[in-house]
Amino acid sequence: MLNVGIIGATGYTGVALISLLINHPLVKITLVTSNTYKGKRISDIFPLFRGLFEETLVPTDDDHGDKCDVYFLCLPHGTSMATAKTLFNDKSVLIDLSADFRFEDLSIYEKTYIKHIAPELAKQAVFGLPELYKDKIRGAKIIGNPGCYPTSAILAFYPLLKEGLLSGDIFIDSKSGVSGAGRDTKIGSLFCEVSEGFRAYNVGLHRHEPEIQKEVNKYQDLQVMFTPHLLPMNRGILSTTYSRLKNPYKTSDILDLFKKTYKDEPFVRIMDEGVYPDTRFTRFSNFCDIGLKTFEDGRIVIISTIDNLIKGASGQAIQNMNVAIGIEETLGLKTPPQYP
Amino acid sequence: MLNVGIIGATGYTGVALISLLINHPLVKITLVTSNTYKGKRISDIFPLFRGLFEETLVPTDDDHGDKCDVYFLCLPHGTSMATAKTLFNDKSVLIDLSADFRFEDLSIYEKTYIKHIAPELAKQAVFGLPELYKDKIRGAKIIGNPGCYPTSAILAFYPLLKEGLLSGDIFIDSKSGVSGAGRDTKIGSLFCEVSEGFRAYNVGLHRHEPEIQKEVNKYQDLQVMFTPHLLPMNRGILSTTYSRLKNPYKTSDILDLFKKTYKDEPFVRIMDEGVYPDTRFTRFSNFCDIGLKTFEDGRIVIISTIDNLIKGASGQAIQNMNVAIGIEETLGLKTPPQYP
Amino acid sequence: MLNVGIIGATGYTGVALISLLINHPLVKITLVTSNTYKGKRISDIFPLFRGLFEETLVPTDDDHGDKCDVYFLCLPHGTSMATAKTLFNDKSVLIDLSADFRFEDLSIYEKTYIKHIAPELAKQAVFGLPELYKDKIRGAKIIGNPGCYPTSAILAFYPLLKEGLLSGDIFIDSKSGVSGAGRDTKIGSLFCEVSEGFRAYNVGLHRHEPEIQKEVNKYQDLQVMFTPHLLPMNRGILSTTYSRLKNPYKTSDILDLFKKTYKDEPFVRIMDEGVYPDTRFTRFSNFCDIGLKTFEDGRIVIISTIDNLIKGASGQAIQNMNVAIGIEETLGLKTPPQYP
Amino acid sequence: MLNVGIIGATGYTGVALISLLINHPLVKITLVTSNTYKGKRISDIFPLFRGLFEETLVPTDDDHGDKCDVYFLCLPHGTSMATAKTLFNDKSVLIDLSADFRFEDLSIYEKTYIKHIAPELAKQAVFGLPELYKDKIRGAKIIGNPGCYPTSAILAFYPLLKEGLLSGDIFIDSKSGVSGAGRDTKIGSLFCEVSEGFRAYNVGLHRHEPEIQKEVNKYQDLQVMFTPHLLPMNRGILSTTYSRLKNPYKTSDILDLFKKTYKDEPFVRIMDEGVYPDTRFTRFSNFCDIGLKTFEDGRIVIISTIDNLIKGASGQAIQNMNVAIGIEETLGLKTPPQYP
Repeated sequence: MLNVGIIGATGYTGVALISLLINHPLVKITLVTSNTYKGKRISDIFPLFRGLFEETLVPTDDDHGDKCDVYFLCLPHGTSMATAKTLFNDKSVLIDLSADFRFEDLSIYEKTYIKHIAPELAKQAVFGLPELYKDKIRGAKIIGNPGCYPTSAILAFYPLLKEGLLSGDIFIDSKSGVSGAGRDTKIGSLFCEVSEGFRAYNVGLHRHEPEIQKEVNKYQDLQVMFTPHLLPMNRGILSTTYSRLKNPYKTSDILDLFKKTYKDEPFVRIMDEGVYPDTRFTRFSNFCDIGLKTFEDGRIVIISTIDNLIKGASGQAIQNMNVAIGIEETLGLKTPPQYP
Repeated sequence: MLNVGIIGATGYTGVALISLLINHPLVKITLVTSNTYKGKRISDIFPLFRGLFEETLVPTDDDHGDKCDVYFLCLPHGTSMATAKTLFNDKSVLIDLSADFRFEDLSIYEKTYIKHIAPELAKQAVFGLPELYKDKIRGAKIIGNPGCYPTSAILAFYPLLKEGLLSGDIFIDSKSGVSGAGRDTKIGSLFCEVSEGFRAYNVGLHRHEPEIQKEVNKYQDLQVMFTPHLLPMNRGILSTTYSRLKNPYKTSDILDLFKKTYKDEPFVRIMDEGVYPDTRFTRFSNFCDIGLKTFEDGRIVIISTIDNLIKGASGQAIQNMNVAIGIEETLGLKTPPQYP
Repeated sequence: MLNVGIIGATGYTGVALISLLINHPLVKITLVTSNTYKGKRISDIFPLFRGLFEETLVPTDDDHGDKCDVYFLCLPHGTSMATAKTLFNDKSVLIDLSADFRFEDLSIYEKTYIKHIAPELAKQAVFGLPELYKDKIRGAKIIGNPGCYPTSAILAFYPLLKEGLLSGDIFIDSKSGVSGAGRDTKIGSLFCEVSEGFRAYNVGLHRHEPEIQKEVNKYQDLQVMFTPHLLPMNRGILSTTYSRLKNPYKTSDILDLFKKTYKDEPFVRIMDEGVYPDTRFTRFSNFCDIGLKTFEDGRIVIISTIDNLIKGASGQAIQNMNVAIGIEETLGLKTPPQYP
Repeated sequence: MLNVGIIGATGYTGVALISLLINHPLVKITLVTSNTYKGKRISDIFPLFRGLFEETLVPTDDDHGDKCDVYFLCLPHGTSMATAKTLFNDKSVLIDLSADFRFEDLSIYEKTYIKHIAPELAKQAVFGLPELYKDKIRGAKIIGNPGCYPTSAILAFYPLLKEGLLSGDIFIDSKSGVSGAGRDTKIGSLFCEVSEGFRAYNVGLHRHEPEIQKEVNKYQDLQVMFTPHLLPMNRGILSTTYSRLKNPYKTSDILDLFKKTYKDEPFVRIMDEGVYPDTRFTRFSNFCDIGLKTFEDGRIVIISTIDNLIKGASGQAIQNMNVAIGIEETLGLKTPPQYP
């Protein structure tokens, strides 16, 4: 059994990790931390865990080095790297759910976030998108788990990028459920500020745009515009991506390319022609569903969905753990989507 | 492996059964039926099942006798008994999710629904509330799975009834998510007729009242009033029950009684004093959570929650199957509640 | 034109007041205050007001005496009375939306809230439920606007109380939309903590219970139990009240009594037999809708709905203003319910 | 007073018309029709109207010619033109909320819908987007009220089109509340099929695309791609439009152009730089709110919101009536947006 620690266990990604890991056959959660709720049982904070998982929370700020085989860091951007420094060693695997280890080029990170205090670690870190970087993730000791929006967007056009088929702008119109904003108390996350309403936010300014752009730039020199919107629902991201192909292709040809590209990926599902994904059909699962349509003049629209807390965060983190450790990629991730 | 058939697989209870059973370690679903969608793959109707379960639906009206070890009947009240007659034999287990086999006294059934056409079967049927009737369910060949509201209500006051502690009226104020109304297209179930609204329905007339009343009458001669309400959400029932104790007791004493009564029941969780359940903490799980408070003058309020599609329907059906067959009661039912 | 001031204008009741008063034909809002947002235009905080009402917010803590004919106090319980003291004079009307002036018997207030610092004012204050106290409200200089839950509950059984028809316990099971919790940032009001969930809160402890109880006690010596629940929606309260009549009556007889009692009340609507209210049919309006059913053994269930921010707060406050000033009771309150 | 008839009064647009018109100072609704509910009082179908508007519904199929000064036709696409033929005369104004009179070029209509049976009427009809065609609407006898999506989209880029500033593709990513699908009972509109989910529909096929395209083509030869999505909420449309300007402009310059273009339009509100609209701030009102951002390389993103049932249907129809008749454009449309 792997001893697993969750650093910052009382946010939505921490709770999602616990929910998944308590049924992972090769894992035992031996450490859950929280500064806010230290000393309390997690099942008192979240009664859903009563009878299932009743560990007591210890302070995040304590030294937790050498306790676990795998650490999941569910801490805010900019603070995670300090904790990573104290935990890093050659025996355990660190999987960081913040943005701190997602950027190979730290100048982009520092322009988008703050000065990086662990550049030597960042250099060793792997961008944990298993569908693109599985070989690098195997055996990795530190993994930067991708952002939720970038996961939904990059998987949506990676097969086209890889083949160099795109041309012109890439417009990514993304919509996310509210859990993406975390469990912090801010006015914009109140029920009455979200329900029965819909809005864009951080237009032209969102920090996931550079994360997407840097992946695009590895393949093609194209400009990304990313606009996030807030959906009046708990979970799920749908990204609608508009672009042009260098040459026109039939929808079925591009779907074939996608199926071929992802044929060994257990968590990417390509829809049939004329079928488009619904967030409800990936909800609570680690799937990314993709549908698309091409037009005679070369335009293309691609629609992709994920659960922002699972494939967009905690599920992908477990997938990364499984790959890094060398166990079956789908362990702990077999719960089907839940509907309705 | 048990061969399992789901008769009427494309309603919400059918879908919930499939979602749970595809991870049940001792079950293989070998039959799914639908008259409406016959000939189509269930994964084309419900894309959530793509890659997980892609069986083709066969007509419900075909003869499916002798095919399966266990049949789940997810058919409308009043029509299920006809199918049960054709399927019943001494080798397989029938678990009926309609009301057709819930009433020992058919005169109550016939007053509430229609004339019963399989009275001899009804006589053999067990009311499938495992926390009350586990001994009878073991080895049973036909089980009437309880209604969702009755499950939430009966479990809420069974420990008091059993001890004969109640006195006076029992007022049950229940609130259910919309999935309880099924997947039929009716105006009252449209999004715009439910969202941002709340209403009572079938006031003094709901067919679950006699189902609750007949269980009460087995222990005490008390009058039940049951009022269902429609919540603007997908899943979950919360029942608030008001009554009086013959003599005043402290809250903690009654909680102790509840804990003792349900100490061997894996799916009933009794809250601590001052803690009350939230439907979100049983959602997608087979738990029933119960909290309560007593008052110095003998009044008592009890609050219970379930997921109407799981403990209120498909999960309880699987629990009944496990008990009837003699395998571990919790198999296939270990997914924790999903939040947020 | 009446000069009207709104003290604490940036909570949900303040916003609702502005929304209604900008179309009141005899009112001009000349003062809006906020400590948090002082110096900003209210239309920058709430862009819905762009082009309609763009006043600049001044500090609540400034001295606003003698500026307005009518002041609406939208301040927290316990702090409102201090402001009321500074504003009170014989020329203007104070309408307080907090609990500070709702209790004739200050010992109940002080047991429920905190020590009262303006008892002489409290003595002059009228409990502003116009359907019960219209004569006292006419010409009143200080009015304690009732709580949202008490408004829905008291109107539901006042005709019975007045005639002394009730007997036994009164169980009030109330459900409210989230806006009743205000615009404060607390975890329990976050979208992800409310949506797709339902829970009771403050069981046996809610401060609206004594407010209801003291009105009941004016007529009959009966015990109230009040249980509030949180609905996953923005606006609306539905209260389901269970009790017994001393003698059995037909539903139609009791409906007739209700119609007679409220025949001159423009904002109370009594449903026909067999029809029950839905919060969506009072939403955004000042109506209270009531339906009920009696049983042969004397039991009765009454269902009442209001918009918690309108009849439960700001609309009722305007109704009180209209009555106090002596203008038409419905001015500014003619917008029909909004659906869907 | 104008005698107004609503043909097909029991859908969501009919209900919205009644809600608005009962407070219109120059209008009396004298006719409401429905084949489904004929003979019933509209207040029995929609209890929100109790005490406010209790007319009896007469059959839509009766002859209603010469009864009213203004007729609003709230009938399905393709059937409205037949009714229009029977009602049309030189004394009354017909405002058709279907697509039947929106297309000057009937070949586009017939390619998108069905064969047109009243081409001579269609020739006289005006496309009722008052911000573009106010001169033509004045005195018009038959008006084709625009679709909800086209209203939100065309207003979003009309100032740019008019000046010929756009270049390249126009990608319109639109999201609508469920009321846009009407009150028909279809599985896709059920609460449990919409709530907590989000999906695109009619990708590349929606009939509002040609309606937008034909307006674009009046100014510039550009290709529109329109993708509608279904939001889990009742009301509101937000359209996010991506395109390129021929030459780069600063955001503030383009905002100034928008403000200038719409300076005499009472229902278009241009946001300040850095502010973007939220559907909740136009909800229940006739406003269209627009915000935008330009980029140094010429890309532009424009975000526009309306209430799909008001500015997207019934409110705009009343605005058209006011303009056609020559009364004040905002009569009956002064209710501010409702929040939360």
